[in-house]
Amino acid sequence: MTILAPSVAARPVESPTATTRQYLRYLFYKARPSWRLVPHGERTAARAQLLAALEPFADRLPVLRAYSTVGTRGDADFLLWMVSERLEDFQELQAAVLDTAMGGHLDTPYSYLAMTKRSQYVDRHEHADGSGEGRRMRVKPTGRRYLFVYPMVKKRAWYRLSHEERQRAMDEHIRIGHEFPRVKINTSYSFGLDDQEFVVAFETDYPADFLDLVEKLRSGEASAYTERETPIFTCVAGSIADVLELLG
Amino acid sequence: MTILAPSVAARPVESPTATTRQYLRYLFYKARPSWRLVPHGERTAARAQLLAALEPFADRLPVLRAYSTVGTRGDADFLLWMVSERLEDFQELQAAVLDTAMGGHLDTPYSYLAMTKRSQYVDRHEHADGSGEGRRMRVKPTGRRYLFVYPMVKKRAWYRLSHEERQRAMDEHIRIGHEFPRVKINTSYSFGLDDQEFVVAFETDYPADFLDLVEKLRSGEASAYTERETPIFTCVAGSIADVLELLG
Amino acid sequence: MTILAPSVAARPVESPTATTRQYLRYLFYKARPSWRLVPHGERTAARAQLLAALEPFADRLPVLRAYSTVGTRGDADFLLWMVSERLEDFQELQAAVLDTAMGGHLDTPYSYLAMTKRSQYVDRHEHADGSGEGRRMRVKPTGRRYLFVYPMVKKRAWYRLSHEERQRAMDEHIRIGHEFPRVKINTSYSFGLDDQEFVVAFETDYPADFLDLVEKLRSGEASAYTERETPIFTCVAGSIADVLELLG
Amino acid sequence: MTILAPSVAARPVESPTATTRQYLRYLFYKARPSWRLVPHGERTAARAQLLAALEPFADRLPVLRAYSTVGTRGDADFLLWMVSERLEDFQELQAAVLDTAMGGHLDTPYSYLAMTKRSQYVDRHEHADGSGEGRRMRVKPTGRRYLFVYPMVKKRAWYRLSHEERQRAMDEHIRIGHEFPRVKINTSYSFGLDDQEFVVAFETDYPADFLDLVEKLRSGEASAYTERETPIFTCVAGSIADVLELLG
Amino acid sequence: MTILAPSVAARPVESPTATTRQYLRYLFYKARPSWRLVPHGERTAARAQLLAALEPFADRLPVLRAYSTVGTRGDADFLLWMVSERLEDFQELQAAVLDTAMGGHLDTPYSYLAMTKRSQYVDRHEHADGSGEGRRMRVKPTGRRYLFVYPMVKKRAWYRLSHEERQRAMDEHIRIGHEFPRVKINTSYSFGLDDQEFVVAFETDYPADFLDLVEKLRSGEASAYTERETPIFTCVAGSIADVLELLG
Repeated sequence: MTILAPSVAARPVESPTATTRQYLRYLFYKARPSWRLVPHGERTAARAQLLAALEPFADRLPVLRAYSTVGTRGDADFLLWMVSERLEDFQELQAAVLDTAMGGHLDTPYSYLAMTKRSQYVDRHEHADGSGEGRRMRVKPTGRRYLFVYPMVKKRAWYRLSHEERQRAMDEHIRIGHEFPRVKINTSYSFGLDDQEFVVAFETDYPADFLDLVEKLRSGEASAYTERETPIFTCVAGSIADVLELLG
Repeated sequence: MTILAPSVAARPVESPTATTRQYLRYLFYKARPSWRLVPHGERTAARAQLLAALEPFADRLPVLRAYSTVGTRGDADFLLWMVSERLEDFQELQAAVLDTAMGGHLDTPYSYLAMTKRSQYVDRHEHADGSGEGRRMRVKPTGRRYLFVYPMVKKRAWYRLSHEERQRAMDEHIRIGHEFPRVKINTSYSFGLDDQEFVVAFETDYPADFLDLVEKLRSGEASAYTERETPIFTCVAGSIADVLELLG
Repeated sequence: MTILAPSVAARPVESPTATTRQYLRYLFYKARPSWRLVPHGERTAARAQLLAALEPFADRLPVLRAYSTVGTRGDADFLLWMVSERLEDFQELQAAVLDTAMGGHLDTPYSYLAMTKRSQYVDRHEHADGSGEGRRMRVKPTGRRYLFVYPMVKKRAWYRLSHEERQRAMDEHIRIGHEFPRVKINTSYSFGLDDQEFVVAFETDYPADFLDLVEKLRSGEASAYTERETPIFTCVAGSIADVLELLG
Repeated sequence: MTILAPSVAARPVESPTATTRQYLRYLFYKARPSWRLVPHGERTAARAQLLAALEPFADRLPVLRAYSTVGTRGDADFLLWMVSERLEDFQELQAAVLDTAMGGHLDTPYSYLAMTKRSQYVDRHEHADGSGEGRRMRVKPTGRRYLFVYPMVKKRAWYRLSHEERQRAMDEHIRIGHEFPRVKINTSYSFGLDDQEFVVAFETDYPADFLDLVEKLRSGEASAYTERETPIFTCVAGSIADVLELLG
Repeated sequence: MTILAPSVAARPVESPTATTRQYLRYLFYKARPSWRLVPHGERTAARAQLLAALEPFADRLPVLRAYSTVGTRGDADFLLWMVSERLEDFQELQAAVLDTAMGGHLDTPYSYLAMTKRSQYVDRHEHADGSGEGRRMRVKPTGRRYLFVYPMVKKRAWYRLSHEERQRAMDEHIRIGHEFPRVKINTSYSFGLDDQEFVVAFETDYPADFLDLVEKLRSGEASAYTERETPIFTCVAGSIADVLELLG
């Protein structure tokens, strides 16, 4: 943030960090009622067209995964979780969806944009082989059946604590997390990019474990500094074809 | 929540708790105006088709009950209260509804997902025959005429109290509840699964009893720690055919 | 609220209080734009049909009054204020409206459900002839020209005051009310039935009196414990035919 | 507010204050997308019809002024500012608009109802000729080019201050206002009539003056007691024909 | 704000500040689903028509820039950032858009109106050549690839601090900003003109820099006084033709 920076023309950006930090987008779609009015045969063709439009992105993006929220939310039907080093990939993907017949029947009720970033709290928990570090700068989904996603904003008082106080609270937080080894966390950062500060996503095959973990964290110190952490989405993994099929 | 959990492929989950803990969903539907434009005869056929689509679920799910909110809410028409050991049952049920002609005219303005869980507060109130315990892990509606449902979030300060302080507040809460024996409570847990922490549902034949109970609880200690407990839905029991019939 | 109540089958309810306590519903309707597209002649017929559908309820319900909010609100067109000993009457009335041609063009943006209840604060203000008591358990509109309605929620701190403290605050509140004898209050209770705790309705022929009363109450002690008391609806009395006529 | 007031039949009201206090309504309209689908020629005719429908009200009402918010708001297109001694005039005006072809394409996203009232704070600032007093009980727009309107609610703590404390805060507020003589304020009162407590409207030819005034007031004592003062509407004066013309 | 200002007729305004202070508008558009139903050929023509309608404004306005939010937001498609000395230019631009075929398919979900103003905090940071000062009174975009925009409201407590306290907090804020020289800030003022107090816009070619800057500012003193700073829009620069092309 400089007040007197010289004006520069728009130009291709070659950021040195482009290969290490990634952009994430959690984009939730919901079919409008008009979709139900499309004849069955046309809907089958439209789903196939949308699949074909997404296929190049599945090849190109480091991560493009689909989850259904039919059965768990009333306000969203499916999620596309996409990761890329290029922000413009998300633009191109969304434009490609809009350009299909089915895309014209889809609303986007929720969208969360974020980036990876090295955590300031977990470094000393890292393994000797450095695998932990890489995981944080590059998103590596594990392919478990359930994904729990929510945006998070912390109270401003959190940021006024000393680093030691915050580290202590996060240590407790991480310790409780370790009691639930079947739940895997992905944390991404949205400061300045979107309405939330973080997007947190948990992968597990055991929803009850996750529920118990979240309840247990409530009595932790860090939890007292949460300003907002809703909406919370329970998402069920499937192929893109699967999640579209559930929409009829 | 483990930072270094090995990546696992998606696979069928055989949780040892699958037979004891249950998922609950309170799903509220509202007919869009387009439903009124369907000719009367077609509407009768469409209601029958929807009933037929739900029948297999009524057989299969431990609980599938219908309630009307026509007459009590302006923003919802009816509730399907469903319980299952398989989260995917809710997905399949909602997809089946969407696949009917009437389903295309129904919005889902409210949806609450939850699980059963053993309470940490009521154990010492349990009966010797253990009936209380089973009720909490498995949902057993009593079939009373009125159901009052609401999502609940407690203030974070609640979770910072000691267990003794919380137990004392809950003892008072339970004692007041016992003064209204014609009202039966069902508590379920949504931490991490949905926007609320709890979904609370009360069954009774006597709405005035419930009103008086809720007002009396307001002066209790636990009530001071409520962050949010709306919307509150007054629901009137009926067969699925009954609640659809009220929509014309 | 009993944890071990025996399961009972749904059955007709014969509550001993059914004849003394009443249910109230304030239901606000708004015509959708589609109503304007109906040819003028058909609209006249549709209004007549709706009137005919409501006529049996005007006979049957203790109270069924209409008020227009055209001219005072942008988000509602008219109010039906209905009172009954049977909650199911509201269900049947709303279903009857939905079943008419005009009903298909009406949204219900606001709905407030409540019951009568004996106040714990005004008993000692009662008249010797007991007329006050009856008024509180049974709703008796006076037919004045203007009705001001709003839902109210009090801060939880209010309920933690002693009864003496609350009585003192309410005494002051009532004393200020007595300075405005041309304004008549109806208080009803919604704890557990709907999102608010109270629905308060004031009848008067003199809106300026009501404005002055509400402003004066702001400096009272009870007012400091108000959590929410909006939206506030200024409603103008009319026959049902009148309020429909204003919609064209 | 009397508990035992005798029931009275609805009847014409002859309030002694009817000639001195006035009702105000700030009604914001927005054209729905359907308006764009009306052929150009029909739109011209429809605008003329709406103008003709409003003409009798322009004659009859003490104030009926139009302002455009195209260019300043995304959620409203124009404002009708209307003032009358009869609340029913607003009802009749809105019904007349609804009865036109264009009225069927207009939503009313914002509406603020209020009354004039003598201020308890500015009396001692009044001029000897009494002109100030009349201005407050009867609305007298000055016809400047820009109007800034917003609803206001004060914190309850404000009303618990002594009159002296509030007078001191208002004196400072008024003093700052006097530093910007090209900005003229209109304050009206909505206690009990609508969701806000006040509707405040400022007329000026110099928007930058108003911006600077509002920023300066932020550090005043009274400003600390503001609970809500949004939305804020920047409105540009025009004839009714002008503001409709901007909608195409 | 004067209570006794003489009534003046509407007239052309010749403000002495008109040439130095500027109005800004950040107007976000979103295509409605109806746009997808327009045949492809007609859409191409409609985009061309809209471009032609905007061309005179691109010539006339000091600033008219386009950014896409397809790919970053679910609730907006593109942004027009416009700057002018005449508020009426924004009115004319929006009316011109509405008058096109495509304009009839565009909603305006977000709109932020503001003005330039000399900052009371950064003066002593100014360069000797005075270039900083001019930049603040006149908007000079640098044409970088990414724009981050959000409305901001500060807590009222901020305005009760002394100027020294605020200056100290802002000095820290500015110092942190200087650590990120590739991020350029534009601050504009909305007091009394719109719902926010400020509109803040950051230009950069390096989104990760901006994210890191915003996170670092969280622990600053000024940040503790932020009441609201959402929604936050990540915008990608393009020609107007480009951003329309992304909508299909």
